[in-house]
Amino acid sequence: MTTRVLSGMQPSGLMHLGNLLGALENWKTLQTQYDCFFFVADWHALSTNYADTSRLKEFSHELLIDWLAAGIDPNRATVFIQSHVPEHAILHLLFSMIIPIPWLERNPTYKEKQEEITEKDLTTYGFLGYPVLQAADILLYKPDLVPVGKDQLPHLELTREVGRRFNNLYRSVFPEPKEMLTQFPKVLGTDGRKMSKSYHNTINLSDTEPVVRQKLKTMVTDPARVRRADPGNPDICPVYDFHTIFSPQEVTTQISEDCRTAAIGCIDCKKRVGDFMVERFSPMWETRATVTANPQQVQEVVEEGRKRAALIAHDTMLEVKEAMKI
Amino acid sequence: MTTRVLSGMQPSGLMHLGNLLGALENWKTLQTQYDCFFFVADWHALSTNYADTSRLKEFSHELLIDWLAAGIDPNRATVFIQSHVPEHAILHLLFSMIIPIPWLERNPTYKEKQEEITEKDLTTYGFLGYPVLQAADILLYKPDLVPVGKDQLPHLELTREVGRRFNNLYRSVFPEPKEMLTQFPKVLGTDGRKMSKSYHNTINLSDTEPVVRQKLKTMVTDPARVRRADPGNPDICPVYDFHTIFSPQEVTTQISEDCRTAAIGCIDCKKRVGDFMVERFSPMWETRATVTANPQQVQEVVEEGRKRAALIAHDTMLEVKEAMKI
Repeated sequence: MTTRVLSGMQPSGLMHLGNLLGALENWKTLQTQYDCFFFVADWHALSTNYADTSRLKEFSHELLIDWLAAGIDPNRATVFIQSHVPEHAILHLLFSMIIPIPWLERNPTYKEKQEEITEKDLTTYGFLGYPVLQAADILLYKPDLVPVGKDQLPHLELTREVGRRFNNLYRSVFPEPKEMLTQFPKVLGTDGRKMSKSYHNTINLSDTEPVVRQKLKTMVTDPARVRRADPGNPDICPVYDFHTIFSPQEVTTQISEDCRTAAIGCIDCKKRVGDFMVERFSPMWETRATVTANPQQVQEVVEEGRKRAALIAHDTMLEVKEAMKI
Repeated sequence: MTTRVLSGMQPSGLMHLGNLLGALENWKTLQTQYDCFFFVADWHALSTNYADTSRLKEFSHELLIDWLAAGIDPNRATVFIQSHVPEHAILHLLFSMIIPIPWLERNPTYKEKQEEITEKDLTTYGFLGYPVLQAADILLYKPDLVPVGKDQLPHLELTREVGRRFNNLYRSVFPEPKEMLTQFPKVLGTDGRKMSKSYHNTINLSDTEPVVRQKLKTMVTDPARVRRADPGNPDICPVYDFHTIFSPQEVTTQISEDCRTAAIGCIDCKKRVGDFMVERFSPMWETRATVTANPQQVQEVVEEGRKRAALIAHDTMLEVKEAMKI
């Protein structure tokens, strides 16, 4: 039996460089080695964005374009949208019956997010139940491996606990998915803070070449380097981080030296990394143009994905119902 | 447009006289006047009975036989099983996103039941969310009227609040269902306490004539009437209550007189009401025998009901998704 991998993303806006390097590059590798299921978690997005759903469909569509442009291959991986598979909602309902509220209240991100996101009312039943839906999303497909960042480990542990509780109450249906810890390279935004939609400092996968170059132009560098003749410190320069990611090793080494000796100015340094970024992004831009010109393609991909996902979801639900005698 | 009525029952065991007089007799009348939807709330039963589901299917089947035997007519009313219509789970999930937890915590039956039912662990997410599922069950069919007892009024009010909140957040989809207050005649059990499964004092709709007569024989009467020659007090005699329900007016008046003067003994008094009960139950027993001999009939009824319910559920969900732009 092939090893199954499952991962999802919320459609909460345009994808940026951080997402590409943190998740999509990883998915691209995984799809060549495993039986991968990648889904757009559109129902999940409601748990924080229920009050403004105006762009949810557009975000889902854009997310899928980003995936395809980045090289996710629907012939290798099963790509689908959560809300197209009603079994997610059914398993969520059944799990809701067996999950103790204290398990949810002790979820570290629950209180954190409630405190952090003050502009939205997150005292909702669904926000508390976020991990219930997540457990259903994952266990429905009985994956062997789930790629997660360190911060998501408690969620996956909760998913395993839900599976164990189900198995103990009824009958063993759910194997325990293992985490696959992924290393995320540090990606800073144009203002030097962590790259994040909420900071408006992102370079998006959907940005065109002129936009990328323009964003680089206004990107902060070593703040101590005020004049062209001042030597800079690449260690604290976010543009230098881009070099380490996108430029060849010898260029990066040279840039580091030239920056410290003021042999190169920030404008030229940015132009150089911009060239390598454009080189890396060009195939993505080409695929994006093709896919955007043919929106039907995205529909076909998710319809094909829905069929494949539904087969597995259906089988799992048969087992679940038989185990629960319902 | 015809007026639509919706009501459901949990499959939590065999139905008894109290259920017949409290709900089924009412449903029988309603089905002649309105477009009625009656459903077996099997998913709901999990909110308190998740730990022991061994007889859930059997209870659902028995419940349906009870309904048919009592005269619920699937040619007039739509009779279906909740779990056959996945839209209940989907609408439950969507509602979960918009319902504030305090609405659920202030639900009077929440704390009450948790304190009352000590032998089960009811600190579950699904038990707290009981009214969320109920709101989905009801609003999915946009009924005009919901028959309720007085104790369920807060639940229906919560359902209306959920509908209002949805309408305000997105677009007006859900009309407000009105309550149809039903009067429940007081039905006491064989031990003189309220008739209830948990007291093991019920006369069940599935009891045969010998069982009913035997249960009457051992039923408590006025406890002060120790000897045959003692005069009795029908006002405090649960058997006399049965006379008021099942015997003709003139018999009841006569029994009351004869009891107070000790002209009739308890054994004869019970025999007389037993005769009227048997007369009333006989058609139910006949239908029950027919249906039990042909279990396929129940399957056909709920399959036909599922189709009719699914049509409406599907339409409502289209509206819901369009309103939410998902």
